Amino acid sequence: MTTPALDLGLPVDELTAALCDIESVSGHETALADAIEHALRGVPHLDVVRDGDAVVARTRLGRPQRVAIAGHLDTVPVNGNLPTRRERHEGADMLVGRGTVDMKGGIAVQLKLAAELADPALDVTWIFYDHEEVDSALNGLGRLARRSPDLLAADFAVLCEPTSARVEGGCNGTLTVVLRFRGTRAHSARPWKGRNAIHAAADALALLARFEPPTIDVDGLAYRESLNAVGIRGGIARNVIPDVAEIVVNYRFAPSRSGEDALDVLRGMFPGVELEVEDLAEGARPGLDAPIARAFLDAVGGEPAPKYGWTDVARFSALGIPAVNYGPGDPARAHTDDEAVDVVELRRCEQGLRAWLTRR
Amino acid sequence: MTTPALDLGLPVDELTAALCDIESVSGHETALADAIEHALRGVPHLDVVRDGDAVVARTRLGRPQRVAIAGHLDTVPVNGNLPTRRERHEGADMLVGRGTVDMKGGIAVQLKLAAELADPALDVTWIFYDHEEVDSALNGLGRLARRSPDLLAADFAVLCEPTSARVEGGCNGTLTVVLRFRGTRAHSARPWKGRNAIHAAADALALLARFEPPTIDVDGLAYRESLNAVGIRGGIARNVIPDVAEIVVNYRFAPSRSGEDALDVLRGMFPGVELEVEDLAEGARPGLDAPIARAFLDAVGGEPAPKYGWTDVARFSALGIPAVNYGPGDPARAHTDDEAVDVVELRRCEQGLRAWLTRR
Repeated sequence: MTTPALDLGLPVDELTAALCDIESVSGHETALADAIEHALRGVPHLDVVRDGDAVVARTRLGRPQRVAIAGHLDTVPVNGNLPTRRERHEGADMLVGRGTVDMKGGIAVQLKLAAELADPALDVTWIFYDHEEVDSALNGLGRLARRSPDLLAADFAVLCEPTSARVEGGCNGTLTVVLRFRGTRAHSARPWKGRNAIHAAADALALLARFEPPTIDVDGLAYRESLNAVGIRGGIARNVIPDVAEIVVNYRFAPSRSGEDALDVLRGMFPGVELEVEDLAEGARPGLDAPIARAFLDAVGGEPAPKYGWTDVARFSALGIPAVNYGPGDPARAHTDDEAVDVVELRRCEQGLRAWLTRR
Repeated sequence: MTTPALDLGLPVDELTAALCDIESVSGHETALADAIEHALRGVPHLDVVRDGDAVVARTRLGRPQRVAIAGHLDTVPVNGNLPTRRERHEGADMLVGRGTVDMKGGIAVQLKLAAELADPALDVTWIFYDHEEVDSALNGLGRLARRSPDLLAADFAVLCEPTSARVEGGCNGTLTVVLRFRGTRAHSARPWKGRNAIHAAADALALLARFEPPTIDVDGLAYRESLNAVGIRGGIARNVIPDVAEIVVNYRFAPSRSGEDALDVLRGMFPGVELEVEDLAEGARPGLDAPIARAFLDAVGGEPAPKYGWTDVARFSALGIPAVNYGPGDPARAHTDDEAVDVVELRRCEQGLRAWLTRR
């Protein structure tokens, strides 16, 4: 196979289309990573490192501060929505197709500016990584953080995930636990000889159903928490009183709490219930009070908002690097079959990041 | 294969052992049915009909009343518990092995008396049938009832299922429904954009958990009802608010209610909830007020009790034939790996039925 050539001088909308048309569903990012590596190695002011299907390109200008600007190369599966096409929706100029929102629009902005900005005011580490849309253990940014944390070193980070070109700071943490209820089996014709484990789960489920999670202010942003039963299971056969039932509970907690704090919240809600942690990811504080963050906000404009979902900004946060989400595309259209980005947002992000990186 | 020879003149405990040692797990009853058919065809006072793996043997003495005495030939799977062995448990003489309780002890009593009683006071229809321990649609007694109801015609029926040699009258009905709760999917980081179907099930589950089912007097016997969640399911992934959840509810209802009455009870408890019937079997009234039933009770002795579980007596009941359960073996030991019958109960049932059938 020959590596597809990418022209980083194209307008950002055309570059987005070209990137989308190189399919890169999770696990199949190599062709796109090859094309990006090849294009960036042709840029004299960048120092390029390849790690698996991740590509990291850095300026080395000796600036007092360095920023990381990151995005993932993979997409969820294509569903007849490639190649990209251009459409007009209610007056808007849209680029339609898999990846246009999540997140090759952001990748296009990154690549265009990486090639263009030979003399930015801040040193920049441009990061393109693999395996974001699948099991967290495979995540390319996580791999870089484990194997080459120096490569990620920065004073501030921007993740170009879709936010409709608004700044979204930090993210809620996420904790998933299994609540397990025990009983004693019996024939369902003589249930008084056993104890029904599904019935034993009723109080906990009622508590979850009526619970109203708080909204918590963190560094000036309001984080809305949530607590949900996302799974429930129990039962052996219609003639058997079951001896075990489980509720899977997902708790999205404000970044002012640690994962351990979040676990204490659940233990306090369900005293005496067997509780097993299935998944825990710390949140990330927005970090918008740091001067470098303020400068970023001033340059790109608009009011910052909290991010409710967990994103890879938390991986930067775990390395002590304040990080925000800022990228083109409506997140509500990510992963949908009619995924489409408004070309205006592509240009707005390009201009926002350029304004920030060149401001002296 | 040669048909194993059965000596119906053996003492009932030895005959039980011989029957158990001819394995007859559901679907593999042919060898045992062949042996029984062969043995009964050698009895001059019986008229024998074979239907699949069911065998029906009748006296034709022109008595004013006819009784049916029935049992199933199949067992649940063998688990290293054959051939049978004799053991002493806390002073009791036990026959141990698959089928000793459920229900070859009863079959042995039937066969022994079928061969012995050439001149009973009542005409007797001895019924041996297949496929009781599996899907109800395969049940051999059900097949006979559909295809040859005349063969089952009787004024009263005894099913020799294990009751520890006590009379258990009628049986509860059983109704299984699925309660289905709907919601709207959303990402679990933004649950307020959807509606959690598992949470929507909380009230119904709480109602089931705290419900105290009544005990209902039917023809002098107290039927304890029961109502249980025997299954619960819902959930797509830990990051998705689920749009559907289901509770499987099993209701054992007193035989004074019809299946339709029972369904009305559940509809009344869960108004507005989507409800799908998964399984419904009518109960059977004990029918112990009929003179023929009183005569049976007088002959075998003891106080009758209600049957909570559903048994094939309901198939007789559906044909308008009052029916009771009466057989050797502790039902709590049925299907267990250490299934074992007390030899005293085998003899007590043999004597009880003989006393009844020969009383003039």
